[in-house]
Amino acid sequence: MLAGASAERRDTALRIMATSLRDHRLEILTANAADLAAYNGTNAFRDRLTLNDARVEAMARGLEEVAALPDPLGRVLADWTRPNGLRIRRIATPIGVIGMIYESRPNVGADASALCLKSGNAVILRGGSDSLNSARAINTALVRGLETAGLPPACIQVPPSADRTYVAAMLAGAGLIDLIIPRGGKSLVERVQREARVPVLAHAEGLCHTYVHAAANPDMARAIVANAKMRRTGVCGATETLLIDHAIAAAQLPRIVADLRALGCDFRADAAARAVVPDLTAANDTDFDTEWLDAIISVSVVDGLDAALAHIVRHGSSHTDAIITEDTAIAERFLASVDSAVALWNASTQFCDGGEFGFGAEIGIATGRIHARGPVGLEQLTIYRYTIRGNGQVRA
Amino acid sequence: MLAGASAERRDTALRIMATSLRDHRLEILTANAADLAAYNGTNAFRDRLTLNDARVEAMARGLEEVAALPDPLGRVLADWTRPNGLRIRRIATPIGVIGMIYESRPNVGADASALCLKSGNAVILRGGSDSLNSARAINTALVRGLETAGLPPACIQVPPSADRTYVAAMLAGAGLIDLIIPRGGKSLVERVQREARVPVLAHAEGLCHTYVHAAANPDMARAIVANAKMRRTGVCGATETLLIDHAIAAAQLPRIVADLRALGCDFRADAAARAVVPDLTAANDTDFDTEWLDAIISVSVVDGLDAALAHIVRHGSSHTDAIITEDTAIAERFLASVDSAVALWNASTQFCDGGEFGFGAEIGIATGRIHARGPVGLEQLTIYRYTIRGNGQVRA
Repeated sequence: MLAGASAERRDTALRIMATSLRDHRLEILTANAADLAAYNGTNAFRDRLTLNDARVEAMARGLEEVAALPDPLGRVLADWTRPNGLRIRRIATPIGVIGMIYESRPNVGADASALCLKSGNAVILRGGSDSLNSARAINTALVRGLETAGLPPACIQVPPSADRTYVAAMLAGAGLIDLIIPRGGKSLVERVQREARVPVLAHAEGLCHTYVHAAANPDMARAIVANAKMRRTGVCGATETLLIDHAIAAAQLPRIVADLRALGCDFRADAAARAVVPDLTAANDTDFDTEWLDAIISVSVVDGLDAALAHIVRHGSSHTDAIITEDTAIAERFLASVDSAVALWNASTQFCDGGEFGFGAEIGIATGRIHARGPVGLEQLTIYRYTIRGNGQVRA
Repeated sequence: MLAGASAERRDTALRIMATSLRDHRLEILTANAADLAAYNGTNAFRDRLTLNDARVEAMARGLEEVAALPDPLGRVLADWTRPNGLRIRRIATPIGVIGMIYESRPNVGADASALCLKSGNAVILRGGSDSLNSARAINTALVRGLETAGLPPACIQVPPSADRTYVAAMLAGAGLIDLIIPRGGKSLVERVQREARVPVLAHAEGLCHTYVHAAANPDMARAIVANAKMRRTGVCGATETLLIDHAIAAAQLPRIVADLRALGCDFRADAAARAVVPDLTAANDTDFDTEWLDAIISVSVVDGLDAALAHIVRHGSSHTDAIITEDTAIAERFLASVDSAVALWNASTQFCDGGEFGFGAEIGIATGRIHARGPVGLEQLTIYRYTIRGNGQVRA
């Protein structure tokens, strides 16, 4: 049983699996070439689908990095003794069987396999049908490694074909699959949430705000806004909306705009922002509700913290929101009031990331309200159970 | 906002609500009399539906007891600083809006209201239609208390009528309801699990085992088995199956059977058990898969720990299972191997209960594999979010 395998055994398996990936490099690249030959979609997706020596090596190294992380299983999460002498412990354990449904990025399968194996979970991997040959070749390599390490090959599975009935079976798999994790675009995630009859740990929208408060350090605000928006525009922690206090808009907004513009960013600004920087494009009714995932930022001038919080409640997605200010009391009110999975003070929203949290690796960012919020790393792939040690206690 | 209300304010509200329940006693009993007059079901259900002075007082006292419990919100669950200086804290927060769907036990509404309010969650209460007048009267009293305490009355809601479309709306309420908790019989829970489009924290089956190992203290085994089965037969932590080692069956099974029989228990025994106590009723194929919730116990003679574990894997429901033994190594292997939400050594399975865990109160026992397993108390009605304090960090 995987859940009963020692940490050493699971880590050894991960290292053997990394070696096996390298050993199967040619088979994996050949399978990937077949996927690419059949592919006729966009260049961006083609790039995600493409494997090469460096990407296979990166997958192998990813497995080794997960092997080096602390064991998430067996942690004693709580430990207390009742007046009747019963000693109760809450212990971290695997969830069980996790179903991953993801788009045509072959590396997701290797990453998810590593995180699930390390956390004692079996995983069923269903990648996009465009990547099925690649996924199978990677799976074959990983399963060889598992077998060499003496762990059951059934711990990592891929459906036997791209037939969509397998996805439906996974979504319907109550009692057989304990948790579904979808990774991909909005339509994939929404379909999974709509159709799944098992629990789903999903990533929905990341409509993140950076609020530049009147007492912000101007240089810090410029640096953080530029990074929060433009470091990578396609990640869920990218800032989509800039809120800036009216009191400082005239002095600081033009420089923030100039910084962003120099990085290639476009703007959707409300009237008050355009009163300060007239050549900004006017925002329409839906712009403040739009997760751009692109080099576009919505801009609104607000009147202080309460107005900023009201904007975030109305338009935000409770994902990641930041305040820039030197006023500690204001910052603490923001951190306490905003209902974001991640609330930052004087830092870039792009820090919403398992690696940046020190989790070592992540399987995604959870936007639901139970089990886990924010980056999902090894700890979040566990649950707990109780052990109770007594000496003959019966209940009155 | 409820989530922003201080612990003191929430606790004060709970105490005012308790007073309001007492003040509305006559209205509640009048409404309950109307429900009872219209009711024509079984006596057992009629008893659950019935309120009287003592039961109203028990509800009020329940609210006061929850007020006295520690605040589950704001707990710092983790706190670390990254090499770049970011200080990350994981803080316990409310889940959001919880939908309770339960059968016609009016007190469940008051208990759930207390636990949800204390944990900063809004709650929508949908009790069985037979109890609708009672539920409304209780709700009116609670909401008066909320208003007196200056908290929003919308924190505790009941649907405006018994119309089943409201249940369907709750089950479909993605984005409006964050979690559904069903409380009731198997068919209610299964319907909610099947139809809900929002996360469900459900209680399914409690098919619990007590395994008397060869090295058990015979007197302790007798006392625990009698308690685990017969203290209350209708609770989910009641033992449904007795496993006993072959080596001691001849010596000990007759006395255990005699104890249980004296308490009014019937038996469904396998051939090996009937070889020892011939007058036991023979078990059929499904008896070991049956959650009796009654004065009946399945009995199987097994050959040691591994056979006991195999039986539990095959027939159990991962709820609560116990071993009785004086052999520490065997006990530790059992505790580590069995995949039960609650695994006990030398104690009665009937300890699977939030009160017995020291949670003060519980809203149910979770049998799923994410968010929470076992008793669901105030802590399990929370989730977390992160605060990150920086001094200008941007991501590389």
